[in-house]
Amino acid sequence: MSADFGPQTQAHGVYSVAGEQPRVGVRLQDEAGDVVVDVSALADRAGLPWAEALSAPSLNPFMAAGPRVWAEHRRWLDGLLGLDGPVPDAVRDASHALDDGSRAVRLHLPFEVADYVDFYSSRDHAENLGAMFRPGQPPLTPAWTHVPIGYHGRAGTVVVSGTGVRRPVGQVRAPGAEHPEVVASRRLDIEAEVGFVVGVGSALGDSVPLERFADHVFGVCLVDDWSARDLQAWEYVPLGPFLGKSFATSVSAWVTPLSSLEHARLPAPAREHPVQDYLDDSAQPWGLDLHLEVRLNGHVVSRPPFARMYWTAAQQLAHLTVNGASLRTGDLFASGTVSGAQRDERGSLIELSWNGEQPLELPDGTTRTFLSDGDEVVITAWAPGPGGTRVGLGEVAGRVEPAR
Amino acid sequence: MSADFGPQTQAHGVYSVAGEQPRVGVRLQDEAGDVVVDVSALADRAGLPWAEALSAPSLNPFMAAGPRVWAEHRRWLDGLLGLDGPVPDAVRDASHALDDGSRAVRLHLPFEVADYVDFYSSRDHAENLGAMFRPGQPPLTPAWTHVPIGYHGRAGTVVVSGTGVRRPVGQVRAPGAEHPEVVASRRLDIEAEVGFVVGVGSALGDSVPLERFADHVFGVCLVDDWSARDLQAWEYVPLGPFLGKSFATSVSAWVTPLSSLEHARLPAPAREHPVQDYLDDSAQPWGLDLHLEVRLNGHVVSRPPFARMYWTAAQQLAHLTVNGASLRTGDLFASGTVSGAQRDERGSLIELSWNGEQPLELPDGTTRTFLSDGDEVVITAWAPGPGGTRVGLGEVAGRVEPAR
Repeated sequence: MSADFGPQTQAHGVYSVAGEQPRVGVRLQDEAGDVVVDVSALADRAGLPWAEALSAPSLNPFMAAGPRVWAEHRRWLDGLLGLDGPVPDAVRDASHALDDGSRAVRLHLPFEVADYVDFYSSRDHAENLGAMFRPGQPPLTPAWTHVPIGYHGRAGTVVVSGTGVRRPVGQVRAPGAEHPEVVASRRLDIEAEVGFVVGVGSALGDSVPLERFADHVFGVCLVDDWSARDLQAWEYVPLGPFLGKSFATSVSAWVTPLSSLEHARLPAPAREHPVQDYLDDSAQPWGLDLHLEVRLNGHVVSRPPFARMYWTAAQQLAHLTVNGASLRTGDLFASGTVSGAQRDERGSLIELSWNGEQPLELPDGTTRTFLSDGDEVVITAWAPGPGGTRVGLGEVAGRVEPAR
Repeated sequence: MSADFGPQTQAHGVYSVAGEQPRVGVRLQDEAGDVVVDVSALADRAGLPWAEALSAPSLNPFMAAGPRVWAEHRRWLDGLLGLDGPVPDAVRDASHALDDGSRAVRLHLPFEVADYVDFYSSRDHAENLGAMFRPGQPPLTPAWTHVPIGYHGRAGTVVVSGTGVRRPVGQVRAPGAEHPEVVASRRLDIEAEVGFVVGVGSALGDSVPLERFADHVFGVCLVDDWSARDLQAWEYVPLGPFLGKSFATSVSAWVTPLSSLEHARLPAPAREHPVQDYLDDSAQPWGLDLHLEVRLNGHVVSRPPFARMYWTAAQQLAHLTVNGASLRTGDLFASGTVSGAQRDERGSLIELSWNGEQPLELPDGTTRTFLSDGDEVVITAWAPGPGGTRVGLGEVAGRVEPAR
């Protein structure tokens, strides 16, 4: 089996080595190891017009250069990385090992986040949460099958994979209690999601139709939308989640270009009823056959199937802008928790433990309903690539630190 | 009566004149007129260490310099602007007229917005909206008197006063209809709010207690949180407002420093029950005696009293960060619609027209429930200043443009 980050993947990130400024690099795996290629230096040596953008400490300048540059850059990388053969020496010489244990390479937040929007596009997840949060009512609200429901999150607390996540403090009201109390969250959870990163903005008043999705979106990352369920339950009516989510959102250090996922495209599942014209994606489906895996302390607890998502990213972007809202380079919009129909396909602990009623058993003999201090969660994903290869999405990892 | 923007106010903004770069200026009104003072040039001439920050095209660098610099800067301006006498000639010579009709001076968005949070802190407003949106249920949700309810809005669509606001298109479901339709909003509304601008950020994991409010917040602006009530009603359960708000939020071109509002401080209204310790502001009240005025096509339709707000900005900031969420320079958090108990004190048309059932009559003989194309809304505000003066907040104005 080929490596998930072989030359077909071209995942972009921002890295630094001791004493040097952060710059853009591309991850490359083969039998010889896992490295980051200094594409900034190589592009400069090749005299590429976008070399300066690659020397920036975030992907934003390169992403802002737009789809023609992205395509030219891809053609250059296809040749450079040895798509059909061994990695050339020039590339090896301009690489830094990622897995030698020396931690000589530091990975940074790969892009400056402009606005962060989180959708809610897995029907299985929405039905599970609805059943738990609003018992006795229909699990889906009337709009859910008509509108990709979403909301804005806190862009300033998006952190790169590997950043510790401190257990948040906040107001909760225990079941049956009259008054709330201020406590460290007792129901700290994850949400396994896929994020889409906007490269090219749009003007206020314009909308971005489905067919222009790939002109604006540069690539895909993994997202862990940490959630304090007890804070969230107390605060979220009527204006939505706030402090239950705003303490941290982790993203992978790598952004896999949309152009690496051509072999993963498929139609979204059948819709319950026809959707509005601006959401009708039958001509150009943007469903994606991504296979997620969630590990808790090294143990796989879930394998959420992204292909089952009811709303695609192209529909989400068309909806986000149908009212004329503008986009900026660095906007991040995430899918919402990816959950499948089976228990072992659910993308959050509140679903895996069914609101804490069915604890998960871990191989070390302990059980979990929600996260304990010290727990580490790692989310990975892959997609089918060309010629039987796999295309990887960078992992998103985080360890729970005790509350202050 | 003294001018609202006399030397006591020191409202800061960003302006440009033809052929020159935008930079920071201070608004100054007296009998001779309404001008913007080129404090960037004057600070440079005086050799002030923060002069370079004032030459930037946004307030962010100056705001990031922190409260000691803000205080020194204020002392310098107190002397410079002639707090106790006529405006000195050196200041006149470094000024540009704002009201000469030539439009030679252009006002820009005064700060780069990092994250935008909107609260919901007027009890009258929350009760009015609750009664209209959730008839038959208690108008306030159980958490409302315990938690300053808020949510994140779209930072990328915050625009400066004077920017046209295009009527948004989106999904709505008419009362009694089975399916939604995509239309130009028929219930376009305003929300008259007060915004607080963060100058000094905080680290992830820290919280900002009430007593450190003025160490982080630089100043105050006015906000018009344009709202499409029909889009909002269809989409907002369970994750809160999204496209009903994200198309535009207008802010005043001027930020009045918190230090200009010392004479406006007062205790917040009595609370229904004791609040949690982190929200207990009895020792250092940050209620503000701001008097808002809302004009529709030149006619005053409301005078919302900010002094009645249930939650203060210091409480909002303490709540926003109690979970460890970090702050950044340029974060904007707004009060939520300011409404009083009387009909002519309500800060939105949905309240003024009681969900469209009681149209407003304008002097030209027309009536309004929601906004018509071409309507202009202007919100102004003042606070008591030192020695019987008034301190102005910059107006926020916008005209409705027809849908695309």
